[in-house]
Amino acid sequence: MPKYIFTNIIGSFVFDEQLNVVEKIILNEGDIAEDIEKKLSEKHKAIIPETKQLRKILEFFKKDEFFRQFYKRNILFTKKQIKDSVSRDILIMETIACVEDIDKVINTLSKRLREWYSYYNPEFSNSISNNERFAYLILEKTKKELLKEINIPEDSTMGADLSNEDLAPILSLAAELKTLYLARQNFEKYLETLMNQTAPNLTAITGITIGAKLIEKAGGLKRLSQFPASTIQLLGAEKALFRHMRTGAKAPKYGLLHEHSMISTAKKQNHGKIARALADKISIAVKIDYFKGEFIGDKLRKDLEEKFKGK
Amino acid sequence: MPKYIFTNIIGSFVFDEQLNVVEKIILNEGDIAEDIEKKLSEKHKAIIPETKQLRKILEFFKKDEFFRQFYKRNILFTKKQIKDSVSRDILIMETIACVEDIDKVINTLSKRLREWYSYYNPEFSNSISNNERFAYLILEKTKKELLKEINIPEDSTMGADLSNEDLAPILSLAAELKTLYLARQNFEKYLETLMNQTAPNLTAITGITIGAKLIEKAGGLKRLSQFPASTIQLLGAEKALFRHMRTGAKAPKYGLLHEHSMISTAKKQNHGKIARALADKISIAVKIDYFKGEFIGDKLRKDLEEKFKGK
Repeated sequence: MPKYIFTNIIGSFVFDEQLNVVEKIILNEGDIAEDIEKKLSEKHKAIIPETKQLRKILEFFKKDEFFRQFYKRNILFTKKQIKDSVSRDILIMETIACVEDIDKVINTLSKRLREWYSYYNPEFSNSISNNERFAYLILEKTKKELLKEINIPEDSTMGADLSNEDLAPILSLAAELKTLYLARQNFEKYLETLMNQTAPNLTAITGITIGAKLIEKAGGLKRLSQFPASTIQLLGAEKALFRHMRTGAKAPKYGLLHEHSMISTAKKQNHGKIARALADKISIAVKIDYFKGEFIGDKLRKDLEEKFKGK
Repeated sequence: MPKYIFTNIIGSFVFDEQLNVVEKIILNEGDIAEDIEKKLSEKHKAIIPETKQLRKILEFFKKDEFFRQFYKRNILFTKKQIKDSVSRDILIMETIACVEDIDKVINTLSKRLREWYSYYNPEFSNSISNNERFAYLILEKTKKELLKEINIPEDSTMGADLSNEDLAPILSLAAELKTLYLARQNFEKYLETLMNQTAPNLTAITGITIGAKLIEKAGGLKRLSQFPASTIQLLGAEKALFRHMRTGAKAPKYGLLHEHSMISTAKKQNHGKIARALADKISIAVKIDYFKGEFIGDKLRKDLEEKFKGK
């Protein structure tokens, strides 16, 4: 007489011909359902039920006593799945998004700092365009020293004389910016580690920032690995692409890739060609990264560089 | 024979009938032109030239030798005017604008922090809505402690286990937010000092933030003091006002004043009436502040409070 084996989220059950339970093993955390099923099925020479028996077995599990167990185990199972779904590429996406947020924030506060500080020392403010250096310099040096650096006599400045009390908040804004610049550096360093661990081939070709933005734009490494090269080429150019489709305006040649040094240093007429070749290699690199293949990123990059040397 | 006196940006000049210079005093920094003119005019009994002589005197100053002096002194004069134009209300406007910028910045980074941290500890993230407390708490306490506070057993959390290396950047973002909150506090303290110095009567009626925003919106204390009460009442409601004029939608009752505690705690049907009375008193207070009159702000506020007690 055949025995039947049936496994669900609660455990593995062996039934006889009359569908009474002969033996069961309840699943505990860490148990692998397949192993337990195999063990029981060998012990009892139990077979997988056919439709007729299966229907009855499913009826058996409709009993009230199982309902609570199904409910509890389903929730545990889902929670575990959510927990395990936090993969490295999610951290990459959060980190690059954070760097982008910080850039926005730095921009807002730098504009404010310049406007505010300009009442005090407009000549120096106009002489320097780099926001980071600006914030650092006004923290380090006095108005007198800064005016001397740009060869403006102190008595001819248009800046107002501010008391220490009025200067302090301006400098504290500069100090705030300084910590934001430092934080940004640390986020970039962390992003570098993540990218080299998770997507070394991609990173070898695109560098850290563009690589991370591609993953972010695609919504993960897995999705990026499934994109055709033509999609990768245009990631980040959605607006221009839809404008092209709607109005017949010029089709975009690249999206995020326009920041890539191989494109920005190339002759204009080769941009499209290089973007296409880059996207091809990226598409290969990302597939290797997703399936944890070996590192050939430097070879891929070298191929490209040789092909487009001087173009 | 009459002598003539003529004063310009270069100095004070006494001419004889033939329009030769008899005596001159060149203006130095800090000299007051009126004083010098008076001194010379008394000494020489010189009089103000009439049109005929004036024309000739102006011809006299067209000489090349004066051109360079006019040029140099005009620039010095303009620079000094710019320098002196930085008044206290400009600092008020910069400070309140900075507080508003920081609020925006805090909002951007708080959203990022919540999203990022939620992969680690979603249950706690959902349990607390105050962004400031959120940032402080995750800096101070471990995941275990935070889960305990909201009575969630550690093994049932959906949050991923992150290594210290992956947790560090999240916490550094929280630390960044903490310094921004502290900076915001200091800016507010400074703003309080400025407002109490420059616009004590206004501040007594509106409080610091609304008062500063009114000055910012008007473009300075002087301009605010020139506005009629009806304009003050609607400052910050420009959008609604123009919508009303364009489409006949309901007219706004107040702009920035809607944040005022006397309005937000009053019955809805009295809002318009209170806003009008508030704007009246503000208009008085601002004029006193601009002309550096005495402090009657507490009396103005008291009048209002008594008038609308319980309404």
